[in-house]
Amino acid sequence: MAEKRTPIKVTDAVQRVMKRSPAGEVERVKIEQVYGRFLGEDLTASHDVPHFDKSPYDGFALKAIDTKTASRETPVTLEVIAEIGAGSVHKGVVQRGEAVRIMTGAQIPAGCDSVVMLELAESFSLERRNFVRINRVYNEGDNISRRGEDTQKGTVLAEKGSYINPGIAALLATFGYKEVPVSVKPKVGVLATGSELLEVGDDLEPGKIRNSNTYMILSQIERAGGKAVYFGQFADDFEVCYQQVVSALQQVDMLITTGGVSVGDYDYLPEIYEKMEAGILFNKIGMRPGSVTTVAEKEGKLLFGLSGNPSACYVGFELLTRPVIRTFLHSPAPFLQSVTGILGRDFKKPNPFTRFVRGSMRFENGRIMAFPSGLDKSSAVASLADTNALIVLPGGTRGYEEGMTVQILLVESQEGLSRMSIDKE
Amino acid sequence: MAEKRTPIKVTDAVQRVMKRSPAGEVERVKIEQVYGRFLGEDLTASHDVPHFDKSPYDGFALKAIDTKTASRETPVTLEVIAEIGAGSVHKGVVQRGEAVRIMTGAQIPAGCDSVVMLELAESFSLERRNFVRINRVYNEGDNISRRGEDTQKGTVLAEKGSYINPGIAALLATFGYKEVPVSVKPKVGVLATGSELLEVGDDLEPGKIRNSNTYMILSQIERAGGKAVYFGQFADDFEVCYQQVVSALQQVDMLITTGGVSVGDYDYLPEIYEKMEAGILFNKIGMRPGSVTTVAEKEGKLLFGLSGNPSACYVGFELLTRPVIRTFLHSPAPFLQSVTGILGRDFKKPNPFTRFVRGSMRFENGRIMAFPSGLDKSSAVASLADTNALIVLPGGTRGYEEGMTVQILLVESQEGLSRMSIDKE
Repeated sequence: MAEKRTPIKVTDAVQRVMKRSPAGEVERVKIEQVYGRFLGEDLTASHDVPHFDKSPYDGFALKAIDTKTASRETPVTLEVIAEIGAGSVHKGVVQRGEAVRIMTGAQIPAGCDSVVMLELAESFSLERRNFVRINRVYNEGDNISRRGEDTQKGTVLAEKGSYINPGIAALLATFGYKEVPVSVKPKVGVLATGSELLEVGDDLEPGKIRNSNTYMILSQIERAGGKAVYFGQFADDFEVCYQQVVSALQQVDMLITTGGVSVGDYDYLPEIYEKMEAGILFNKIGMRPGSVTTVAEKEGKLLFGLSGNPSACYVGFELLTRPVIRTFLHSPAPFLQSVTGILGRDFKKPNPFTRFVRGSMRFENGRIMAFPSGLDKSSAVASLADTNALIVLPGGTRGYEEGMTVQILLVESQEGLSRMSIDKE
Repeated sequence: MAEKRTPIKVTDAVQRVMKRSPAGEVERVKIEQVYGRFLGEDLTASHDVPHFDKSPYDGFALKAIDTKTASRETPVTLEVIAEIGAGSVHKGVVQRGEAVRIMTGAQIPAGCDSVVMLELAESFSLERRNFVRINRVYNEGDNISRRGEDTQKGTVLAEKGSYINPGIAALLATFGYKEVPVSVKPKVGVLATGSELLEVGDDLEPGKIRNSNTYMILSQIERAGGKAVYFGQFADDFEVCYQQVVSALQQVDMLITTGGVSVGDYDYLPEIYEKMEAGILFNKIGMRPGSVTTVAEKEGKLLFGLSGNPSACYVGFELLTRPVIRTFLHSPAPFLQSVTGILGRDFKKPNPFTRFVRGSMRFENGRIMAFPSGLDKSSAVASLADTNALIVLPGGTRGYEEGMTVQILLVESQEGLSRMSIDKE
C-alpha cells in the first residue's frame, strides 16, 4: 500500500508509449463507405486532370485568329458546323471560319484554341445552316481548361494515413478507386473498474454512481478512429479480474481500463500487471489530472490504465491513447492539433504540475479564446458537454489570469500534428 | 435556351430554403451507438451531481474539530473505526476521536465533515486497533465534493439537436439513458447527371471523366449528419430521367442532383421541375461558383439542383443543403461556423459577385489564416483534399491581397451558428 511511484514528464510518457505503438493492417472498402476512414496508401494522381483540354463553359469553340477583327461594330460571323455535349468528341478538325457549339466540360475539338461563352455570342440560323456572331477579340487559350491544369499525373494528392474528407473522396473517384485501401480500425477494448459503479440502466443507490466513463471513452475511441469493444465491469474477485484482463486483451489491439490504478487498497491493476508479467512503461505522470495514469505492455499490445475520475480519464485518453490509435491508422500526424490562444477566464488554482484543463475554444473577433469549463474538479462531468479543447497550463505558477496566452489542444479536430510538444514543460 | 434568370442574394436563397426546411423524427438508440448522433431532446440533469457528499481522494474522513490543535510537533491521533470503499456506505455515525478510512469517490460517513489525503496521514496499528496521525489543522468541508457541486438537478446540460460528443455521452450515462432519444438521420438522395460521366470503376475515355461529385457529396451528406442514398446516374432519355427523379424523391427526405441545371441544351432539370410541378424557390444565386444552383420543392420535400462542377457543387451543398440536414436533426445551430481571419495568399481574380473560395484554415502564431486552395478553377478537384473552409470574398472588388481580413466558414467543424450571415453581401 502507498507504493512509491516516480512521476515522469508528459512528453516522456507520450514518447515511451509511441515507441511501442504499432501500425495496423490495410483493408479495402467500397468507395461509398469511405468517409471518415484513413487512407491505407498514398493517393497519387494516376492521370492528368483534366486529362484532355476542355471547355469550362457552355459556348462556342473556335480559332482565336478568326476573331482578330471582331468588334461591336464589325462582328465576325462563323458557321457552327457541329454541336458536342460533355462526354462527346468532335470527329473532324475545325477549319478557319468554323465554330463548334460546345457544352461545359466537353473536349475542345481539334483545330480550336479558344471558347466564347454562350452569353457573349449571338447565334442564328439561315437556310438550315447555323451561325454565330462574335463581337470581340479572343486570344489563343481563352476559356480553355488545359490538360493537367488542375493536377499532373504522379502528384501525391493525399498522404497515407490522411483522414478521408469529402475532397479526398472526390479524388478517389476521379482516379478510379471503386474500392479504396483504408487503414483497419484498431479494436480498442474497455474494462471499467470501481465497486461504486452502477450500470447505466440501474437506479441510483446511496454512495454509488452510474458508470459514465465507459460511454465517454467509447465515444473518444470512435472519435479517434478506433473500434470500441466494451467488456463490462471488473469483478470483485482478483482472480476473476485477472482473467478478464487477459481474455479481453487477446480479443483487441489495445486495452483501456478505467479506475483501479491509484494506490487505494481496492485497486487491483498493479497486481494484475505484475501477475501477467506486463512491462510497466510508467505508473505516474507529472500532470493534473491523471497523475496515476499507468501504461503497460504485454506481447506488443498496450494496456492503458486510465484513472477512474472522468476528467483524468478523458485527458489520459486524449494525450496517450489517441496518438496510438492514429498511429495504428498510419496517420502522419497522430497528435492533437495545438494552437495558441487567449485564456478567457481566470484559473487561479496553483499548479505544481502541468495541468490540462478541459475547456471550450471559441473564436471571438478573429482571436482564439479558451475558457476553462466549470469548476474543473476532477470529478466534474457536467462541464464536459461543451469541451472541445484541453487548455495547457504549465506547472510551477500561482495560477493563470484572463488574457494570458496559453496553449490549446483541440480534441474535436480531425487535423493533427506529427509531433507532440507541450509548452514549457 | 438561354432562358433569363434573376439572381438572388446568397442569404436570401438560404432564407427561402430554411423556410421550407422541416424537422425530422426522433428515435431511440443504445447508448453504445450514440457518438456523432444528435440529441432528440434536451438533456436535463435528473439528479444532483454528485448526488451525495463524497471524497475526491483516498484518505481518512473525520471531524475537522479534532484537528484543531494538530501540528507537526503535536500531531493528533484518531482511531480508524472502519474502512469504506467507493460504492460502500458507512452505517454508523462517526464520533469525536474517530476517523474512517475512505476511498476516492466514497460517500462521506455521517458525522464527518472533512477528509485528510492518504499521503498526508500516518497510519499505524496497535493491539489490533488502527490509528491515524494528523499533523495539521483541517477545516470543515476540506476535501469534500458536495452534493450538487458539479450540477444541480434540473439543469439543462445540452440542448436538443446538440452533436453528441464524448462529454455528452458521459452525461447521458450519468443520468441513466440506457437508450438515448436521437434525431433520425434524414435520407438524402443523390442523382448524378452528365453524359460526360464515367462510373468510378470505368476506364478513362476521350472527352469523359469519372463521376467524382457523387462520392464527394455522399461524404458531405455523412459529415453533415445525413444518410446518403445514391440512385446512380441520369438516363439520356427525358422521360426516364423524369421518372428517376420522381421515384428517388419518394424514397428520401430530400434529393440532390448534380449537374443539369445550367442553360445548356442537354440540361433536363428545369423541364423536369416543370413537369413534376415542383415550386422553384430560385434558379440563380448571385455568387461564384454555383450561380446556377436551383432549389425546388415538391410536397414538402426539397430538391437541390447543384451545379455539375465540383467546386460549385461543394459550395452549393455546404451553403444550402447542410443547414437543411442540420435542421432536420433539430440542431439549434445549423449554419457553418464562421470566423474572421487573415487571407494568407493573394486572390486577384476580380469578383463581380460574392465568391466562396475553397481553402484551408490554419492557425499560425495565434492567428487564424486562410489559404485559397490551388487555382480555384471551378473544375479543380485536386485542391479539395485539404479543404476545411470556404473563404468568403464579397463581390464588387478588383481582388484580394494577402493580409486582408476575411470571413471564413469552417466546413469540418461540428460546431455551428444559429444564423447565417455573409459579411458585406
